[in-house]
Amino acid sequence: MAFLSGLSAFPITPSNHDGRVDTVALRRLIARLSAAQVDSVGLLGSTGTYMYLSREERRRALAETLDEIAGRMPVVVGVGALRTDEAVRLAQDAKALGAAAGLLAATSYTPLTDDEVFEHFSTVARESGLPIVVYDNPGTTHFRFTPALVSRLAKVGGIIAIKNPTDKPDAIKSHLADQRRAVPEGFSIGYSGDWNAAEAMIAGADTWYSVLAGILPEVCMKIVTAARRGDAAEARRIDAALAPLWGLFKEFSNLRVVYALAELFDICRAELPRPILPLPAPAKRQIAAALERLPSDASR
Amino acid sequence: MAFLSGLSAFPITPSNHDGRVDTVALRRLIARLSAAQVDSVGLLGSTGTYMYLSREERRRALAETLDEIAGRMPVVVGVGALRTDEAVRLAQDAKALGAAAGLLAATSYTPLTDDEVFEHFSTVARESGLPIVVYDNPGTTHFRFTPALVSRLAKVGGIIAIKNPTDKPDAIKSHLADQRRAVPEGFSIGYSGDWNAAEAMIAGADTWYSVLAGILPEVCMKIVTAARRGDAAEARRIDAALAPLWGLFKEFSNLRVVYALAELFDICRAELPRPILPLPAPAKRQIAAALERLPSDASR
Repeated sequence: MAFLSGLSAFPITPSNHDGRVDTVALRRLIARLSAAQVDSVGLLGSTGTYMYLSREERRRALAETLDEIAGRMPVVVGVGALRTDEAVRLAQDAKALGAAAGLLAATSYTPLTDDEVFEHFSTVARESGLPIVVYDNPGTTHFRFTPALVSRLAKVGGIIAIKNPTDKPDAIKSHLADQRRAVPEGFSIGYSGDWNAAEAMIAGADTWYSVLAGILPEVCMKIVTAARRGDAAEARRIDAALAPLWGLFKEFSNLRVVYALAELFDICRAELPRPILPLPAPAKRQIAAALERLPSDASR
Repeated sequence: MAFLSGLSAFPITPSNHDGRVDTVALRRLIARLSAAQVDSVGLLGSTGTYMYLSREERRRALAETLDEIAGRMPVVVGVGALRTDEAVRLAQDAKALGAAAGLLAATSYTPLTDDEVFEHFSTVARESGLPIVVYDNPGTTHFRFTPALVSRLAKVGGIIAIKNPTDKPDAIKSHLADQRRAVPEGFSIGYSGDWNAAEAMIAGADTWYSVLAGILPEVCMKIVTAARRGDAAEARRIDAALAPLWGLFKEFSNLRVVYALAELFDICRAELPRPILPLPAPAKRQIAAALERLPSDASR
């Protein structure tokens, strides 16, 4: 599963008021990730507003991304939907277009049982043939994966990896060790929660699923590279330099902040899908000020 | 706002594996509600699996329902969607077809702020012209309406009512009194949570938004009628007789139980949209046994 290790960078999906993807702006974002040689691109994650885009727009976004990347790195793409049949169709689309894997969250309206989530994931894996990454994101889905459910899912053919949320940084090491024991060898274990990711990579996680890397890939690659060569001090030094950004991620949500960053960096002036509102001007000024406080090697 | 008082009965929306509504079965359910002379029909609520059905199917379900009811009672219809523009379109459809009001929940994937929910609701009310019922359902949306937000929303033109969740029955009276003070006169205050609804109606709530009434309207009408004429003892007697059903609602979720009831009553053999699974056979046997324990005037 070498394609799911290292830095997986999750860009925003710029779109207009009607939910039509701005493919010119998207390609500009993807080109930056490609130039920074991230290990994989995570298209249409929560940061990529996948739940707000139609099947057709998700297909367009993926096709343009794959064309821009031209095989230089694998693309993991969000295939989540409320209905199982819809998630199957999205995964089939992704497989047909050439995605390397599908990221599947336990999205729900009616709260789901463990058995329902198990069936949902196995059905999508089986009926699409697309390798599936279990996307554990309680902050948006409100579903909690138990260790027992993760272990059951990891044994299903075609389910190849997990993207875990992080809680406290000092809990990651034991979480990782426990999960390693519960899943087959070769199953890729990764984490999101950018502010804890340096610790996760130092602890030996396979993958950092990163929101910041979608807009600032180079500084995130530096953390991953330092952790890989065992230089925990350097990984922590860069992580600490990014603290002002982590603070903003926690205060305003990383999604809203990276939209503001895309505007500040003059990449695009995309708006989030309503009902999500743009950050107010004072928050944007706070973000601009935080950028100025970053050391120069962290702000590009 | 007389059309939003008394019993609002929420039927299931029978549909096939592909999410196509079974209009014959739906009309059979609606005819029962019409015969029982419920005060309104709540189509495409959470029980009506609105979030799992396409715009086209939601339009079909509403058109068939309005045709079956033929003006005998108002229809409130779920118009919720993740995107504001989609909710506007659903509300415009509902208005064009002749629904009396739209039920709008704060559905989200990305957690929403109070301002975002306020804009979402005001935009749908303004751009559709459909009277809007605020649907506060933290169990599915995980959004919590504060009293301050309810008060702001109640002052928006076209937002006419609220469907509150219930917590403990002994907290309803003070909740109702507090909310009355915070909203304009004539704003309709109702409750869901069937097992607490008798107390809500005794306390003077305008409306009971009822899942059970979607399948057993007559016994629910008896509770509402008793509460209306001030006979709290009789309302409580019938409510207590339904305790075995309330227990099942809490154990298996009311949605899953009413699907089993529709099958037991031979109304239809609809399946819930996957990933939601049918209840296992032992649970269905438990439901059948509970029905037999109900007094005869409560089981029809």
